[in-house]
Amino acid sequence: MGQIHGSNAANHPGLRLKYVVDPRQQAHAGLCSRHSAQAVELETALADPSVRGVLVCSSTDQHLTHALAAVDAGKTVFCEKPIDLDLDKVLAAQSRFRSASFQLGFNRRFDPHFLALKHKLEAGVIGPLESLHLINHDPEAPPAGFIPTSGGLFKDFTIHDLDLARWLLGEEPAQLYTSASCLVDPEIGRLGDVDTARTVIKTGSGRLCVISNTRRSGYGYDQRIEAFGPRGMLAAGNSQLNTVQSMTENGITSAPIQPGFADRYRDGYRAQIDHFAEVVHGRATPSVGYADGVAALILAEACAESVRRGSVVKL
Amino acid sequence: MGQIHGSNAANHPGLRLKYVVDPRQQAHAGLCSRHSAQAVELETALADPSVRGVLVCSSTDQHLTHALAAVDAGKTVFCEKPIDLDLDKVLAAQSRFRSASFQLGFNRRFDPHFLALKHKLEAGVIGPLESLHLINHDPEAPPAGFIPTSGGLFKDFTIHDLDLARWLLGEEPAQLYTSASCLVDPEIGRLGDVDTARTVIKTGSGRLCVISNTRRSGYGYDQRIEAFGPRGMLAAGNSQLNTVQSMTENGITSAPIQPGFADRYRDGYRAQIDHFAEVVHGRATPSVGYADGVAALILAEACAESVRRGSVVKL
Amino acid sequence: MGQIHGSNAANHPGLRLKYVVDPRQQAHAGLCSRHSAQAVELETALADPSVRGVLVCSSTDQHLTHALAAVDAGKTVFCEKPIDLDLDKVLAAQSRFRSASFQLGFNRRFDPHFLALKHKLEAGVIGPLESLHLINHDPEAPPAGFIPTSGGLFKDFTIHDLDLARWLLGEEPAQLYTSASCLVDPEIGRLGDVDTARTVIKTGSGRLCVISNTRRSGYGYDQRIEAFGPRGMLAAGNSQLNTVQSMTENGITSAPIQPGFADRYRDGYRAQIDHFAEVVHGRATPSVGYADGVAALILAEACAESVRRGSVVKL
Amino acid sequence: MGQIHGSNAANHPGLRLKYVVDPRQQAHAGLCSRHSAQAVELETALADPSVRGVLVCSSTDQHLTHALAAVDAGKTVFCEKPIDLDLDKVLAAQSRFRSASFQLGFNRRFDPHFLALKHKLEAGVIGPLESLHLINHDPEAPPAGFIPTSGGLFKDFTIHDLDLARWLLGEEPAQLYTSASCLVDPEIGRLGDVDTARTVIKTGSGRLCVISNTRRSGYGYDQRIEAFGPRGMLAAGNSQLNTVQSMTENGITSAPIQPGFADRYRDGYRAQIDHFAEVVHGRATPSVGYADGVAALILAEACAESVRRGSVVKL
Repeated sequence: MGQIHGSNAANHPGLRLKYVVDPRQQAHAGLCSRHSAQAVELETALADPSVRGVLVCSSTDQHLTHALAAVDAGKTVFCEKPIDLDLDKVLAAQSRFRSASFQLGFNRRFDPHFLALKHKLEAGVIGPLESLHLINHDPEAPPAGFIPTSGGLFKDFTIHDLDLARWLLGEEPAQLYTSASCLVDPEIGRLGDVDTARTVIKTGSGRLCVISNTRRSGYGYDQRIEAFGPRGMLAAGNSQLNTVQSMTENGITSAPIQPGFADRYRDGYRAQIDHFAEVVHGRATPSVGYADGVAALILAEACAESVRRGSVVKL
Repeated sequence: MGQIHGSNAANHPGLRLKYVVDPRQQAHAGLCSRHSAQAVELETALADPSVRGVLVCSSTDQHLTHALAAVDAGKTVFCEKPIDLDLDKVLAAQSRFRSASFQLGFNRRFDPHFLALKHKLEAGVIGPLESLHLINHDPEAPPAGFIPTSGGLFKDFTIHDLDLARWLLGEEPAQLYTSASCLVDPEIGRLGDVDTARTVIKTGSGRLCVISNTRRSGYGYDQRIEAFGPRGMLAAGNSQLNTVQSMTENGITSAPIQPGFADRYRDGYRAQIDHFAEVVHGRATPSVGYADGVAALILAEACAESVRRGSVVKL
Repeated sequence: MGQIHGSNAANHPGLRLKYVVDPRQQAHAGLCSRHSAQAVELETALADPSVRGVLVCSSTDQHLTHALAAVDAGKTVFCEKPIDLDLDKVLAAQSRFRSASFQLGFNRRFDPHFLALKHKLEAGVIGPLESLHLINHDPEAPPAGFIPTSGGLFKDFTIHDLDLARWLLGEEPAQLYTSASCLVDPEIGRLGDVDTARTVIKTGSGRLCVISNTRRSGYGYDQRIEAFGPRGMLAAGNSQLNTVQSMTENGITSAPIQPGFADRYRDGYRAQIDHFAEVVHGRATPSVGYADGVAALILAEACAESVRRGSVVKL
Repeated sequence: MGQIHGSNAANHPGLRLKYVVDPRQQAHAGLCSRHSAQAVELETALADPSVRGVLVCSSTDQHLTHALAAVDAGKTVFCEKPIDLDLDKVLAAQSRFRSASFQLGFNRRFDPHFLALKHKLEAGVIGPLESLHLINHDPEAPPAGFIPTSGGLFKDFTIHDLDLARWLLGEEPAQLYTSASCLVDPEIGRLGDVDTARTVIKTGSGRLCVISNTRRSGYGYDQRIEAFGPRGMLAAGNSQLNTVQSMTENGITSAPIQPGFADRYRDGYRAQIDHFAEVVHGRATPSVGYADGVAALILAEACAESVRRGSVVKL
């Protein structure tokens, strides 16, 4: 993620990538040389008064430490999700961040397709939202080695959908139920995690939201939203790799959908940094902040609890 | 439904519509005259030894009485769903039906689109089924007056999806959870029913199925299936009323989806009667029978119970 | 075609199929028995004063003889296209038909997809029509034995598009040019015909229309219209055999398009007979008549002449 | 175009944008500052031995002068199309360019959608190509003031399609016919040009190609290819601005197609410069060169001649 955000910042007309801080020297050499950035220790970067913003893209267990250091140094912070896997730690640190100086990396809110759907929803095309389907299927399961430090399916993966649900429902979940299985890789199950899940959320006013997750789709990175209201349905679909169709006596064949997050959310990652540039320059407050990270984390824990207990969790 | 099934039978080369039994004389006059059928009392029709099959399309509370009378008279029976709203009555009568002489009206199993999906599933196109989404949204809520005798959303409407789920999953549900609301018409809520629901089913082996229901879509009769396996996804979508697209600077507009069941399942209703003709002539045993009706009814009751108790129901 | 039109007439609530006249006894036996019609000689049928309409579906070289006999007997005539392959004969007979009693079988004008496009065009969705693309590709070449009596590609096949062009352009062609080849079956070329052609029509006001024809598409019966105006484009596309999509890592596959005319134009054939019923009962005058057959035949001859001379033909 | 190509070159890892030569100082200031390039006179740039390649993006009447100057200075040249509007000048200069050092800016050959179609064609998905439709509709007519120096519709606009036709047909056109009108803007007609045209090309072996052009579509930048062979059809379609669909009782609405060349061909412009980088570094010979420019220009003149004479032009 450091590569993606670093490049987007470097290419942004209102930002300059001055430093790259990374213990793995090799990894960021290209980033530095391509954008004339300097590889330094964190202290050096934070001590430089010309540095106004920091992109925290370290490993999840370092997010909070690095974000705190940056904020304490007076910088505006962009932090990758999740803030941390430990809700207690996240809550304990919350008061140290001002909302104006912390942007959380829930990139899907910046995806132009999802934004177009949200604008139509807000424009009343289907009337007030009644129910929502979020489909988030990863193309391939991560290596089993990733599972133990991942936070599990819900904190690592579903958390995006939980944030999208909050963003689109316009109302906090009142209860949720998650049914989950290990169908993709038995090793994931042995490590105590699940790889296939369906979550049903209900808000206080009775709105319903289904989240569909799998760690391995077999057909690409399936990222869809369906929103239902009294006057109709809004759907954001997948893009295909190209527009070519072959028509033969066997049917019509077209290109696969986009295979992974880097391509699928390329524009969203860029728009996210565009927003951060506005935040750094004091022209906007973060549209997605620390409190959103807390809320999504609480929901992710509720999903895990629902699976563990086999029952509905009230929020 | 009597009009639809009666016409399909009359137009079938291997069947002849001899009698129409209907207390509402006006309603079936056209059916009789169009197909040279005779309006008679039930006793007359059942006493005629040339009558080999009976289509039971009476009101739901009469299905079982009429089906039993027909079976006792030695006829082969096609019976509209549900068999009855009362599970005890349905179970009590079960032994009186031989599987060879009772076909239940779960028409969606005969829909060519859903059948094509099932064939691809069985052909292994996506590997073994892992999860399933069934979308069944009615275009408009029924009049509130229909609710009290309808059996409620689950026995009246979701029952189709519960049968589809059993048919496609190839395995019985082990537990289910339903989250439901009354968002469409408050009168439905006052009558003790719900109009918007999401059901999550889990089978013994961990397969997951989500059923999405609403009584009023605002955009037509949304009837879709999405099936997921290790190698991909199969989807059966909606048909639109025509193939015309308008492209302007405002975007691309095409025709609405089919508005209701009569058009959407026209081919399926016909194929269902084609199958009944084979059954009547002893060339096939019913592919969907009494036991399927029992199983779906049990699941429909479980949905209602889940909503009532707000918890997961083990099956 | 006799089977299709005969069945549609028999199933029409306002018509009854009384007689079938066919020298090939075997061919129409089913039609007679299914609809309780009688096989008789032409004279018998025409002498029956209760017969008000006649469907002429004989071989092309008999169309005119039969249509004249029927009209002379005071019947209203539906006649398959083309009226005849010989323009002189067609012109010579023209005065013997009153426009109220002759409907020509240009079925595409009754196709609901094409009609929906025409309605949108007339509603001004794209502004006044400027140009038009008609795609008419047959799935497979006819047997070479059919070619000598077919009238050639233009009178047999393109004639439908020439009629559609006139119907949609709302203005007569002023000149046309056809470029054609024999790419499908060399035997067709040896018989003096072509199997692949592109025709460009220009009207007096400068509207342009391209007609694309091939005798063998390899992918089904491709029947499309694209209409262009100052504010956009209207397109009528192909229907696929079902709505199922398979998504795998290799891409998205869906069903073939409809393979032939009987399925593709099923609704249009029915609507054509619906219109004939109105004509027979004096409630409508034929929307497509003898003069349209003359005009299309003149254009078909112009296409052939353009190919023969290798140049533009003024009309 | 200088902005697009200059930025793509500057962002290419194997190229560096050293100089910008532009009499209109304002226009290129941003390009220089963003990419640390220097604004100089042409002589300075060409005299610098470290400059290996030159992108000629001047006005059409300067292309040839600048390309010659660059080639004479030993540089490798990328030149925007057309080489010049005057075929005689183009032919006279041809011998001064070696094929290894001249790449012509027919960007559509580098579009990933069109390339994917070509690869499927070459892979034999539909068998040997028989016919081709090229749709190239500009969203809005250029200002009338542009017409006199544009070379007219065929040299300015259709020339892209003529190159695509040559590229895809794999065979030179043997004859062509163009039918054209002025339907968009009467001022274009008064200036002696046309704005709506259909061209039919025939190759020696009888392959047919239709090119559809209009200066104003009203619905965006319509850029499509349809290729037909014995076993089916390949089609490259338009992309829409986003994937959102609204479904209501009025139908299904989705986003407009891409509105203009900069977005539609963004990837193709980049790939074109990728190729130029390979050419500059001697790792590739230009896949599209001077001879292709000559051939397309001859065809464009033939289109104009066909319109002028109202007849077929042999090539």
